[in-house]
Amino acid sequence: MTSIPNSMRAVQLRAYDGKPENIAVAQIPVPRPNAGEVLVRMAAAPVNPSDLAFTRGLYGFKKPLPAIPGFEGSGTVVEAGKGMMARFLKGKRVACHAADPKIAGGTWAEYLVTPANAAVPLRKEVDMEQGATMLVNPMTAWALVEAARQGSHPAIVQTAAASALGRMVLRLARKFSLPVINVVRRAEQVELLRGMGAEYVLNSSDADFDSKLRELCQQLKASIGFDSVAGETTLRVLRAQPRGSRMLVYGALALAPCQMDPGSLIFEGKRVEGFWLSGWLRDKSLLSKFRIAQQVQKLLAGELRTDFQARFPLEEAARALQQYAANMTAGKVLLIP
Amino acid sequence: MTSIPNSMRAVQLRAYDGKPENIAVAQIPVPRPNAGEVLVRMAAAPVNPSDLAFTRGLYGFKKPLPAIPGFEGSGTVVEAGKGMMARFLKGKRVACHAADPKIAGGTWAEYLVTPANAAVPLRKEVDMEQGATMLVNPMTAWALVEAARQGSHPAIVQTAAASALGRMVLRLARKFSLPVINVVRRAEQVELLRGMGAEYVLNSSDADFDSKLRELCQQLKASIGFDSVAGETTLRVLRAQPRGSRMLVYGALALAPCQMDPGSLIFEGKRVEGFWLSGWLRDKSLLSKFRIAQQVQKLLAGELRTDFQARFPLEEAARALQQYAANMTAGKVLLIP
Repeated sequence: MTSIPNSMRAVQLRAYDGKPENIAVAQIPVPRPNAGEVLVRMAAAPVNPSDLAFTRGLYGFKKPLPAIPGFEGSGTVVEAGKGMMARFLKGKRVACHAADPKIAGGTWAEYLVTPANAAVPLRKEVDMEQGATMLVNPMTAWALVEAARQGSHPAIVQTAAASALGRMVLRLARKFSLPVINVVRRAEQVELLRGMGAEYVLNSSDADFDSKLRELCQQLKASIGFDSVAGETTLRVLRAQPRGSRMLVYGALALAPCQMDPGSLIFEGKRVEGFWLSGWLRDKSLLSKFRIAQQVQKLLAGELRTDFQARFPLEEAARALQQYAANMTAGKVLLIP
Repeated sequence: MTSIPNSMRAVQLRAYDGKPENIAVAQIPVPRPNAGEVLVRMAAAPVNPSDLAFTRGLYGFKKPLPAIPGFEGSGTVVEAGKGMMARFLKGKRVACHAADPKIAGGTWAEYLVTPANAAVPLRKEVDMEQGATMLVNPMTAWALVEAARQGSHPAIVQTAAASALGRMVLRLARKFSLPVINVVRRAEQVELLRGMGAEYVLNSSDADFDSKLRELCQQLKASIGFDSVAGETTLRVLRAQPRGSRMLVYGALALAPCQMDPGSLIFEGKRVEGFWLSGWLRDKSLLSKFRIAQQVQKLLAGELRTDFQARFPLEEAARALQQYAANMTAGKVLLIP
C-alpha cells in the first residue's frame, strides 16, 4: 500500500450559485480518520442530479464554503480509525458516500474521510466505475421498486423515465413482472426506452398525453407513482392515477413547486410523499443495509447497471457538471481523481 | 302526521356554472322511498362551501341536470321503505344528507328520499337548525381533531381558521388541550378569533407571516395541518411545519392547485393527503357512525355549535348562495323549505 501524502487535490465549491468560475481544484491537506471513520483513496465519482442541485444551493442541506462536492464514489480504504467496523474495512475496495451534512468532505477529491457505516465493501465482480455509482441510483431504484412490491401495487407510473434511475426502475420492475408506464419529455427518449423493450412510453409534450396517460394508469392500475420532475408534472400524473394512489416525489428537475389537484387528494384519496435515500437508509438496521447492498451489487452488471458518457479529471469538474446537465440521458459523467 | 302531497317545491340547478339564473324553484313530483330508504319532510338546509363548489361544477361528482342541490339538512321522516333501519326512523326527527352521487335528490327541497343509513336521529335537545348543519361541519371537525389526537400530534395548524369549520376545530381542540395555530387572510378575522380566546392567530397577508408561522409551528410542534384553501397556502404552511408533518387538505377555497415545495416532501419527510367526510364515514361501521353521531350531537350546543347569519325560503336559493359566498365568516345561511 502506498503511503498517504500530506496534501491532495480536491474540487472546491466557492459559492452556491452553479457558476463554473466558483468550482475549481485546490491543493489542501489530506484529512485523517477519527474513531469509527475510514480514509478512502478515491478511484471514481459520478455527477448526479443531486450534485447539480447541491452546487446550485438547491439541495436539502448545505456544507460550509468552500465545500468539496460529490455525494458518492468508490475507492480503497487506506487508513482506519478505531473501531471494529472501520478496521474491518482497511484495505478493502468500497463504495462510499458523503451525502450527509455531518460529513465534511466530498467524493470529488483524491481522498475522503467518511464514517465506516457510509462505506460498503465491493464484491469482487464489481469494478470501481460501477461501484462509484452504486449507492445513489441503484439503491434508490431498489428502494422505489421495493415500495411498489411491498404495497402490492399492480403497476408503476414514473416521470423522467429515461434518466439513469428511471431506466433502472424499468429494468428492475420487469424482473419482478411489474408493468411500468414511462413518462418522458422528448421524442428521442421515447425511442431510447422503446429500444430497451419498454412497452408503455408516453411523451408529455404530445397533445393527447393526458388522456392516454389516464387510460393506461386506470387500465394497468398504476397506483404508485415515482416523480422526479415536480411542477405541473406531479399534478398531471396524480390526476391520471386510479383512486387511492400513492405518489413518491424524489426529485425536482423542473425546479418548481409540485402542483396537485385538491380533488385528487380529497375525493380520490390520493396521497403524496417524498422519498429520500438518506432518510430511507437511516431507518434500516446495519444488517439490513448490508443485505440490501449485497442484493444491489449482484444486479450491478444487469438490471442496475450504469452507462457512462464521459470521464474527466478533477480539474474539469465544472465542465463535467455542464456536460451532464446538458444531456443527462446520454449516461453518467465520471470524475477520475 | 300530515298526508304526503303529490308535488313539491324544489330548487333546481340547470347548469354547473354558478350563475344565479340557472338556479330556480320548480314544482316536481314528491319522490317515494324504496326498500331501505326514507322520505324526509325537510325543515332546514344550510349553504356550505361544498354546495358552492357543487353548483359551480367543481365538486368531486356531478348529478344529472336538472339537479337538486343541498348536501345536508334536517327534517322529519314521514314515510319509510321496507327494512328494519328505515322503519325504525319513521316519525323521527333526523339529520340527513344527499352528498352522494347515488342519491338522486338534494336537501334544498320540501322532501328528500335518502338511504336510511344517510339519516341520523336527532337527540331531543338538538333543534332542527343545529341538526340541519350537523353532518358536514361538526362531523368533519370531529374527524379532523380525532386524526390529530390519534396521531399524537402536539399541535394543529389550520388555514381558513375563521370559517364555521375552523372555529369548531379551534373549540374542540381546546377541549382536548390541543394548541391550534390559526391562519386567516383578513384583519377582522384575526379579531374574531382573538375574541373567541384563540391564542395563536396569524394573518397570511402580513409581511412577516412566513417567519412567524414557521417559528410557531416549530415551537409548538404543529405536525398536523388542516388546509381548505389550497394554492400557495398549502406550500407556505407545509414549509413552516416541523419534519415528518402531515397535511390534510379538505377544501380548495382558492380554486387553484395545491402547491408544495419538493424539498418539504423529500428532505423533511412531510406528506400530503386529502380528507373527505364521505370517504371517512364509508370506512366506519354503522355502530361507530352511530356512536360518533351521538358524541357530536352532545357538543352541538357548545364546541360544535353553528352560528347563522340569515334564513331564506327556497325561492331565494340563488340569493342565499350569493350572500354566503360574499361573507362566509358571518355565519351559515339556511334555506327553510
